[in-house]
Order: sequence, then C-alpha cells, then structure tokens
Amino acid sequence: MTPGRPVPPPLAKPILIDSSESPAATTLAAAFGATSADSGLVPLTVARRAPKEDDVEIAIEFCGLCHSDVHATRGEWRVPPYPLVPGHEIVGRVTRVGAAVQDFAPGDRVGVGCLVDSCRECESCLEGLEQYCERGNIGTYGAIDPRNGDSITQGGYSTSVVVDRRFVLRVPESLDPAAAAPLLCAGITTYSPLRYFDVEEGDSVGVVGLGGLGHMAVKIAKAMGADVTVFTTSESKFDAARGLGADHVVLSKDADAMEAANRSIDVIIDTVAAPHDLNPYFRTLRLDGALFQLGLPADDMPPVSPGLLIRRRLAYAGSLIGGIEETQEMLDFCAEHGVASDIEVVGADQLNEAYDRMVAGDVKYRFVLDTSTLQEPSERADA
Amino acid sequence: MTPGRPVPPPLAKPILIDSSESPAATTLAAAFGATSADSGLVPLTVARRAPKEDDVEIAIEFCGLCHSDVHATRGEWRVPPYPLVPGHEIVGRVTRVGAAVQDFAPGDRVGVGCLVDSCRECESCLEGLEQYCERGNIGTYGAIDPRNGDSITQGGYSTSVVVDRRFVLRVPESLDPAAAAPLLCAGITTYSPLRYFDVEEGDSVGVVGLGGLGHMAVKIAKAMGADVTVFTTSESKFDAARGLGADHVVLSKDADAMEAANRSIDVIIDTVAAPHDLNPYFRTLRLDGALFQLGLPADDMPPVSPGLLIRRRLAYAGSLIGGIEETQEMLDFCAEHGVASDIEVVGADQLNEAYDRMVAGDVKYRFVLDTSTLQEPSERADA
Repeated sequence: MTPGRPVPPPLAKPILIDSSESPAATTLAAAFGATSADSGLVPLTVARRAPKEDDVEIAIEFCGLCHSDVHATRGEWRVPPYPLVPGHEIVGRVTRVGAAVQDFAPGDRVGVGCLVDSCRECESCLEGLEQYCERGNIGTYGAIDPRNGDSITQGGYSTSVVVDRRFVLRVPESLDPAAAAPLLCAGITTYSPLRYFDVEEGDSVGVVGLGGLGHMAVKIAKAMGADVTVFTTSESKFDAARGLGADHVVLSKDADAMEAANRSIDVIIDTVAAPHDLNPYFRTLRLDGALFQLGLPADDMPPVSPGLLIRRRLAYAGSLIGGIEETQEMLDFCAEHGVASDIEVVGADQLNEAYDRMVAGDVKYRFVLDTSTLQEPSERADA
Repeated sequence: MTPGRPVPPPLAKPILIDSSESPAATTLAAAFGATSADSGLVPLTVARRAPKEDDVEIAIEFCGLCHSDVHATRGEWRVPPYPLVPGHEIVGRVTRVGAAVQDFAPGDRVGVGCLVDSCRECESCLEGLEQYCERGNIGTYGAIDPRNGDSITQGGYSTSVVVDRRFVLRVPESLDPAAAAPLLCAGITTYSPLRYFDVEEGDSVGVVGLGGLGHMAVKIAKAMGADVTVFTTSESKFDAARGLGADHVVLSKDADAMEAANRSIDVIIDTVAAPHDLNPYFRTLRLDGALFQLGLPADDMPPVSPGLLIRRRLAYAGSLIGGIEETQEMLDFCAEHGVASDIEVVGADQLNEAYDRMVAGDVKYRFVLDTSTLQEPSERADA
C-alpha cells in the first residue's frame, strides 16, 4: 500500500447513488467509487433502474481498471459529478431484459464498454460511429443520461448495471470473462485505428508504449497478420514485448536503432499519454503512413515537423475507442484468434493500491476487478 | 523597384553554367539566376546538353515564379550550388527529341514541373509517385543529376531546357501557355491532396491562405464540384476569394465566425508557409476530416492538440507536389474545366522587383516570366 493513500474504512451507511428514474422499482448494486477527488475509492451503493422496454440488466462479473478511471475519479481532467463509480470494461451475464429485447436473454455473457447511449440520430450515430456522436456520446460513468431522467451514469465497479440493448455487446463464451473485460476499452481503442487504416497480412505496425493499450495493440496487430515493432524507452521491456508477439523491439532513445528503423513502418499506434516528441517516429514511417495518437497528455505535445509529413505524405491522426458494431466485430475477432488481455485480477480492497500501481506503470498489463469481492448492499445495510 | 535591391547591370560576359555532359554538342540558353545569396537575379548563360536518346529539348515560352524560387536563390533553406537558375513551372514547345522518343515531336506544347528525374526503381517511383522517390527526386534546378554526369540541374528562367521524356508533360493547346505555367507547381501541389482525399461533388473544402497555391486550390476544388470555404486573416481578401469562386469566406481571427464554421469542412488545404495555430482549423473539420499542410515554415508550428484529432478521427497530413502521371491528369482536368492561374506576366528586367513583391504578398496570384525577354546568348557574347 502506498503511504498517504490508505484504504478507507467501510462506511457504516454507504452513500446511495440513485441512477434510476423510479426509485420504487430499483435494484441496489454494491459498488466502489470516489466521493471526492481525494477520497480514494470507497464502498458505495448504486440504485439501478428496473429494466425498461429496451434495457438489459447485467450481473457484472469483472470490470477492467482503465487509466481513465484514475484521471476521472481524481478529477484530473475535469471535476466529475461525485459520488462517481468508474469502470467501462464490463463483462457479466444478463439477468433480466425489457419487453422489447429480442437479441439478449438471461444467462447470456455480455459486455459494456465506454458508451451506454448516444443521440442515435446524427450522421455519426447512423453510421455506427456512436463514439463520435455529434451531440456527445453518453459515457458509461459520469455522464448525464437524457433518456433516463438526466441521471448520472455509474460504471462497472459494481455488482450490476442496466444498459439499453443497443449498447450491449455479446462476449463469446470462448473468451475468459476476466481477460475479455479490457477488450471493451483497451481492445477496441487499438483495434479501431488498425481497422480504419486497413491493416492486413504483411503490413508493418509500430506500437509506442507497452501498457494496457500498447499490449493489446501488439496482440491485435499480430492477429491481423502484421509485422509488429514495439518502440520502448526501456530495455527492460524487450523480453515482455517479444513475449507478447512483437517481431522487433526498438529502443526509442537509441538514435542508431531509430535510424535503422527508418521507413520501415506502415502505421504506428502511439499509446503514450505523456507529452513526447513524435518526429523520430514519423521518420520510421513509410510513404502514406500514419501515426495514431490514442493517449491524451495533459500538457502540450512538442511540435510536429510539417516537413516530415510533407515529404512522405504522412498523417498524424487521432482515434477514439470504437463504435458498437465495430466493438462486436472486435470481440468476435479476438475470440476467433484467441486474443485477450494479460491481466491481474484484484478484489475491491486492492483497488486503491491498484490505482497507485497503474500510475507507477506497475502492471502487466491490466488490472481487472472481480466484482464478487464487492460487499452486497444488503450486508452493508445490516452492518 | 524596392530600394536596396537594384536590378544589376547586364554582365559584359555572362557566366556560363555548363549543365551538359559533352560541351561540344551543347546549346547555349539565355537565363537569369543568382550567383550568390545576395546577388539578386542576373543574366546567365546555361549550356544545355544535346538531346540524348530519351531526351526532349524544349524552347521555353513561360516560366512561373514560385515562392520556393525566392527561398532557393536567396539561400534561405540551404546554401544552394551557385550560380543557380531557378524556375520549375515551365511551358514551351518541343524543338528536338532523342531517337527513342515516340510520344513527343517538335512543335508540341509541353511542360516541366518540379522534377526532371528520379531513381525510377524504388516503390514510390514504380507507383508513379516520383516526388516521393526513396533515393530523392531530382529537382528541376539546383539538384545533382546522376544520369547526366552529376551536373547541377538549372531551371526555367531560361530560353531552353532538355529533359528526359518521362518527366515531360503535355500541355493542352486549349490552355493559355502563360496561365498554364503555374499549374506545374501550384496547380499540382493543391490538386494532388484533393485527389488523394478523393474530393468529389458536394464535399466541403477549406482553403487557408490565398496566394499562389491557395487561389489554385479554390479553383481546382470548385472544378471538382466542392463547396469551398476560404479562411483568411484579412477582410480585404473577401471579394477576391469570392471572385475566384469561393462559396464562403471566413475571417480566421473572428472567433464567432470560426465557431459558426464548426464541423462544416471535409478537408482543408493549408497553404500558409509561416507558423500558425492549426487548432482552430481542426475545429472546423467534420468526422474523418484532414488538414493538408503544404507550406513549410522555417520555424516550429504551434503544437497541435491531440484531443481534437482524437475526438473526430482527424488527420494532420502533408503532401508534396504530385507524380508525373498525376500532373498530366491535372493538366487535362484543368483544360477540361477551363482552370488556369491568375497571373501577371513579367519580363526579365522585372524579376527582382517581382521577387520583392512576392515576399510582400503583392501579387494576384502568380508572376510568370515571359522568356522572350531574356537576352539571346549570342547577343550577349557580342556585347
């Protein structure tokens, strides 16, 4: 345990977050979340709505811990609405469905990713690109949910969740449910730009940074048949990169090694969320190559050299998670190719330590919360 | 005439630049070029090689004045090999062809752009993307020409030039030869990214900067059927932009006008060669939009916000002139659509003044040298 961030004692009466429209019909879900920027994660109770016509109620089994969860709960991007239950890498089983739900039934293994709704009407939504909804997608936690009484969405560090069927994914039974959870964010976030760039057999893919996103990028690119180069600042990661399937590993601070990689890569997936100079990576790209930056540094990036972009018709691009249809495609692709995340399963009492270890980069490669370790609300109420 | 940069007196014996392999068989061409970074443009004589098997000899009629010519002759990018005859927007008529030349005959109206050779073997060259030759393309002036005895190429401010048939373009007779000259650089440089982005009827194209490149971008995008928005820092350019065919003009320093243009553009052609903040332009792009930067500022650009790229899957891209096949396609397209440059024809004695006016942005929109005003070498030798 990191000094200065002790696990808080369980609250005698956990705070009840009502995210339902009609409290009478709600189900109480045990959860962990933040009550302020410096509260750490503490036990909470979430009132989930009774499934409406199009809703799917899910008993959550596992939820991945994403670095965004740390930023969000600690208020590092913006002040979120507290109390806040994070978690958008959710895998579980259907418990109940609304009257209009045909495609899911109790017992189905399902998942929920970063989105639980969108406007469903704009050009992006109509193209199945709900993540780019022009009116703003509805995130799985901390978002105002207009179709549910403007309640604030609460995420997957919780025993259950209720989500519109349009935003529920089928998780193939062949995937380990805990290792599949990070696919819902880390997986789709790296899969989507690789597909958008149309990566195929024999293409050369570079991956910058070997964390939660980076390790998924390596596995998925390999499964697509690419030749994969990992760029890392630390020689200590060479073996790990090769273990994940990387064909080449380049020490990015070694100018000679970077020069040797000149014009060798078709597309780079850059997962580093701290400011860093991209120009050495552009030099490794071939004609018409692209670098997709997926991480969002809090400070300015060093300037990109337009000359590098011009001389090889390169693109410096961004990409945001993926749409629902593409997320399903990714899950099916991962099942077909036996791809899942390398994980460390933690219990609720380890969440705060896990956050500190994520900040320190001390995880290979994703923590996943086993929600069976969350205290049942009924037990708490009796305490 | 700008004070401090007087037209130099004609040299009694103009410097002879020998760009031929076998001086015995050369033709002497009258030319204007620089003998040092601060010489201004002075009369020179270039020895052009006798046409080899694959060569086309061209009597130059017109040559556009590109801003690169100013940078190159003044040594602002690098110290070029002096003496240097600039000019890569060349239009003229074929005078002689080599024995292996089937596709050109004396009298044909032809053009030469920024390239006179490339390795012809690398992947880029084999794809008709000679501008991206992996071994470095051979520029029309100031480049070492390995297939011609490592002589230094000399450009189009000259009465003639000899170029391999593979790098000679057909200029349709329906185009005014003087107004067609700038198509060989300004035209293809803007046409190529528009084609690469696959602009078609109804797409929305933004153009930043209304100079030589910008005005061609407006005309070509309109001819492609696009809805065109010009972004300018000066209200004084509104009428000119509309006169060129722009559907909308936005004052880029007007935050409200920029906000009103939010999410309205598919692709932006940015022709400004000074450092400027691109982030306000990214905000005007739609999902999957791209901004192509064509100008090459001497200093760092302000940092691009990765969040903007991520939230709409945007690309910040570069593009370099165009390949030979595409340049021919562009010339044919311009002939079909009646597109050419707005020009001001100048004589040799106005070149230095024209350079100063280009630096001051005082030209609508391209100067073109009438090479009939160049003194004949024979006249000079007699002087």
